[in-house]
Amino acid sequence: MQAKAQPDPRWTRRRTEKQRRLAQVREFADGAVLRTGSIVEVLERLIGPGDRVVLEGNNQKQADFLARALARVDPERVHGINLIMPSVSLPEHLDLFERGIARRLDFAYAGGQSLRISQFLQDGLLEVGAIHTYIELYARLFVDLIPKVVLVAGYTADRQGNLYTGPSTEDTPTLVEAAAFHDGIVIAQVNEIVDDAGELPRVDIPGAWIDFVVQADKPFFIEPLFTRDPRLITPMQVLMAMMAIRGVYERHQVQSLNHGIGFNTAAIELILPTYGERLGLKGKICRNWTLNPHPTLIPAIESGWVESVHCFGGELGMEDYVAARPDVFFTGRDGSMRSNRALCQLAGQYAVDLFIGSTLQMDGLGNSSTVTRGRLTGFGGAPNMGHDPRGRRHPTPAWLDLIETDDPLARGHKLVVQIVETFQAGGKPCIVESLDAVDVGKGSGMPLAPVMIYGDDVTHVLTEEGIAYLYKARSVEERKAMIAAVSGVTPIGLTHDPRRTEALRRGGLVALPEDLGVHRAEATRSLLAAKSVADLVAWSGGLYNPPAKFRSW
Amino acid sequence: MQAKAQPDPRWTRRRTEKQRRLAQVREFADGAVLRTGSIVEVLERLIGPGDRVVLEGNNQKQADFLARALARVDPERVHGINLIMPSVSLPEHLDLFERGIARRLDFAYAGGQSLRISQFLQDGLLEVGAIHTYIELYARLFVDLIPKVVLVAGYTADRQGNLYTGPSTEDTPTLVEAAAFHDGIVIAQVNEIVDDAGELPRVDIPGAWIDFVVQADKPFFIEPLFTRDPRLITPMQVLMAMMAIRGVYERHQVQSLNHGIGFNTAAIELILPTYGERLGLKGKICRNWTLNPHPTLIPAIESGWVESVHCFGGELGMEDYVAARPDVFFTGRDGSMRSNRALCQLAGQYAVDLFIGSTLQMDGLGNSSTVTRGRLTGFGGAPNMGHDPRGRRHPTPAWLDLIETDDPLARGHKLVVQIVETFQAGGKPCIVESLDAVDVGKGSGMPLAPVMIYGDDVTHVLTEEGIAYLYKARSVEERKAMIAAVSGVTPIGLTHDPRRTEALRRGGLVALPEDLGVHRAEATRSLLAAKSVADLVAWSGGLYNPPAKFRSW
Repeated sequence: MQAKAQPDPRWTRRRTEKQRRLAQVREFADGAVLRTGSIVEVLERLIGPGDRVVLEGNNQKQADFLARALARVDPERVHGINLIMPSVSLPEHLDLFERGIARRLDFAYAGGQSLRISQFLQDGLLEVGAIHTYIELYARLFVDLIPKVVLVAGYTADRQGNLYTGPSTEDTPTLVEAAAFHDGIVIAQVNEIVDDAGELPRVDIPGAWIDFVVQADKPFFIEPLFTRDPRLITPMQVLMAMMAIRGVYERHQVQSLNHGIGFNTAAIELILPTYGERLGLKGKICRNWTLNPHPTLIPAIESGWVESVHCFGGELGMEDYVAARPDVFFTGRDGSMRSNRALCQLAGQYAVDLFIGSTLQMDGLGNSSTVTRGRLTGFGGAPNMGHDPRGRRHPTPAWLDLIETDDPLARGHKLVVQIVETFQAGGKPCIVESLDAVDVGKGSGMPLAPVMIYGDDVTHVLTEEGIAYLYKARSVEERKAMIAAVSGVTPIGLTHDPRRTEALRRGGLVALPEDLGVHRAEATRSLLAAKSVADLVAWSGGLYNPPAKFRSW
Repeated sequence: MQAKAQPDPRWTRRRTEKQRRLAQVREFADGAVLRTGSIVEVLERLIGPGDRVVLEGNNQKQADFLARALARVDPERVHGINLIMPSVSLPEHLDLFERGIARRLDFAYAGGQSLRISQFLQDGLLEVGAIHTYIELYARLFVDLIPKVVLVAGYTADRQGNLYTGPSTEDTPTLVEAAAFHDGIVIAQVNEIVDDAGELPRVDIPGAWIDFVVQADKPFFIEPLFTRDPRLITPMQVLMAMMAIRGVYERHQVQSLNHGIGFNTAAIELILPTYGERLGLKGKICRNWTLNPHPTLIPAIESGWVESVHCFGGELGMEDYVAARPDVFFTGRDGSMRSNRALCQLAGQYAVDLFIGSTLQMDGLGNSSTVTRGRLTGFGGAPNMGHDPRGRRHPTPAWLDLIETDDPLARGHKLVVQIVETFQAGGKPCIVESLDAVDVGKGSGMPLAPVMIYGDDVTHVLTEEGIAYLYKARSVEERKAMIAAVSGVTPIGLTHDPRRTEALRRGGLVALPEDLGVHRAEATRSLLAAKSVADLVAWSGGLYNPPAKFRSW
């Protein structure tokens, strides 16, 4: 396996440089274990100016100790780095730019920091390399964004660097692989260090992939992003959920799927055991999921609807419940969940029938974006899940059902459903004439507007008014008319011609609730299998342990 | 992390069943190590009728010892399994169906066994679940094809099951993860078992993910699929390579790419250091690759063209060369290569500017397939790499260069290039009126024709006649005319109207060699930086060690 001779040094520059840097921090380490208090000095010695540095910030799990330490390095020594982050969410992430430590940002999602990114961009403190969808960003780590240093987080390590990442494995294995196998440097912060692998619940990442582990000053930050309190679900969302089940899931026999994060899709999850059950759909739809462990899925799981759930990441409070349902969830030998965002995004792209999600703005052609004026939020997983994967070749009933021609070279289509209320809270229309993203793109000097999901990938638009079956549209003009027909009294909706809408209904291109056998009068909160977080806890037999902010009892 | 109480047995059926099966084979194992001679009996006890079983057969590496053992189980005990294989390539794989042990096949590629699959399908011995592209098949392992048993191959294991997969990591981590984290059973055959992890070159897969390791009766079979002997490259292929460089790579500034397996693309690799160098393109194009370690890439690497190569799998004979060029290739701490087909397919999908590959048949709209009458070959990675990834959001010069509108909501496009000689050896046209795949699909009862790459994903068709810039076509009719213009004297080519072709040339929709500044007279084998396998060995400084069948000196 090994080269016969010592490799020629002209071809081992990365390895030589890594060894040079590692030698400079040996004094702060006992084997693979770094002293916590030395971390700032260590980062100053391990990271060079202009380096590509991956800092693990996921949807949920944050390498926050390392982020804080990096924000404290001397900008005279470390500056101008190209920061690569799946999700930018802590103030420290932006402090890096304010202090000049980082200069260029490649990312996929920015939640709470989206305002500040916009501001820094305008102030010239920050350049955006690109906004990505998650797995596109991972993909580039092996091609044209190969990192020099990768900083990640895990629960527990042993003294050889073996890592237990537990329910929140998320992006860690993929980020680590990019550096571990190309002479990059990997540092993992952990909550606890044990003596040897036997004391770890399990090994998620082998120690030989990790250069250093360091015990963080406090457990890593993790946010319950996927918990939706059923008390906040409105009757209108119940109506939309009923339409989704009858007009999309039942009609196309949707067996595998991904749900977005909103209350609309939480409502769908919560009426499967009531409305779905009454329609006799159990076992016929919604069997295999790619989804974070949403607490609102508990009643459907307990009622026997769900065969499997593969997860991108974990969800705070769901650990014990997941561990007690290993037939449904992916778990390790130790019993705790294994999530894996790269594989779950792959599954959500190539292996599911349907993606359904919401957005902040959608235009009259179905293009949508969460990037609005002054906020550079990024896209997360939506572009990956919300498009038709044209490399897919295996058929399923739902995928085939979208074929509208008898061309023998036709192919099926993934169901990409935009579920939007025509107006946001506060009376701002969600369906608009032009996306803010178009102006933001121009204003930020981006080569293209930051569109999250493109209209030509969307197969269905579902609003409280009805469903537009966009995959049936025979022209762009018809597509526009179909969206207008379900856009209510938004500016786009007001352009619709009632006679045209009637014709679209007769042709099956648009359906109102009554066309689907959905009774508006039934659309009340009483259809929700759980009406509160306390109900979810009860459904779980006490296994779900909601974070304090969701406890109201 | 752990559930507070023992999980309810109604939700741990997979785990209970796994424990039951494991208990039945304890007598054949010493810890994680199975006795070689007991393997048939062990498989009979571990696999149940109708189980979903993944058998590792990759493009190159084969779990052949386990395949032979599986073919010898008693069909009274093990029958009707759903066999899941990335690549079906050994006679034993089909023997499983002949003996009734397997019934249903889900796969991505079948090389040497494609004839027999067709025959068995007709004879009713085999059902095809679906033909997939590789990562689509992996994706389903986490959704609706979750396996009960996974059988893989590695080089070396220790007695705890820690696995060294070395240069041929390929699909193994992904296949193992699907079972290891959902109470499936994992068995790895290895060439050698050592006492503990310290004796392994490195750990590629943690022991806790593997239930059993077993020493194979002989080292696993591996085939040098990506070695192309430069002696067989024709002047016509050199001409096409020159056109590719000038008319595609230079024109669109292609920086990251994947090459198919054919002689045409090998010719491109071999004229980069001569023709490409003379054009002053070094450093400007072809910097970052997703590619198996093609021996024909050696001269370009040695001449400083190649910044990085991430590999799907390894290539026999390239081990020492790769280990000596760690700045270019991904290697582990032990110095040997790390390949990873799942991540490399992801990289080849989302992170590269261009895919260029050949096919056996292409129709007048650019649809292509390697499935021809009597051969169900499958697709491998081509559908994944040969489509426009619509979830991509990051721009590169090449990707942006394909935008033909000033719509602010436009997006770029991946370059998908079909490089085909108009006729195959033997005078059969490659460009045909209708793909055999259409009839095969109908004849085999498939819901859709098995198309490898769809014409609407193809941006360029390159033949010895010229290049059709299909992304510029304004209608299907124009697209057809453009393909006809470069289709020579095939039936499709004969439909072209010379005056129309002139107009297409003037409009920049079609280019002949002279339009690209490519001189036909220069297209000789003297442009090849290496003209034989011996030349490749010389370029490598003796590090490349070609398999015997490629040695002619």
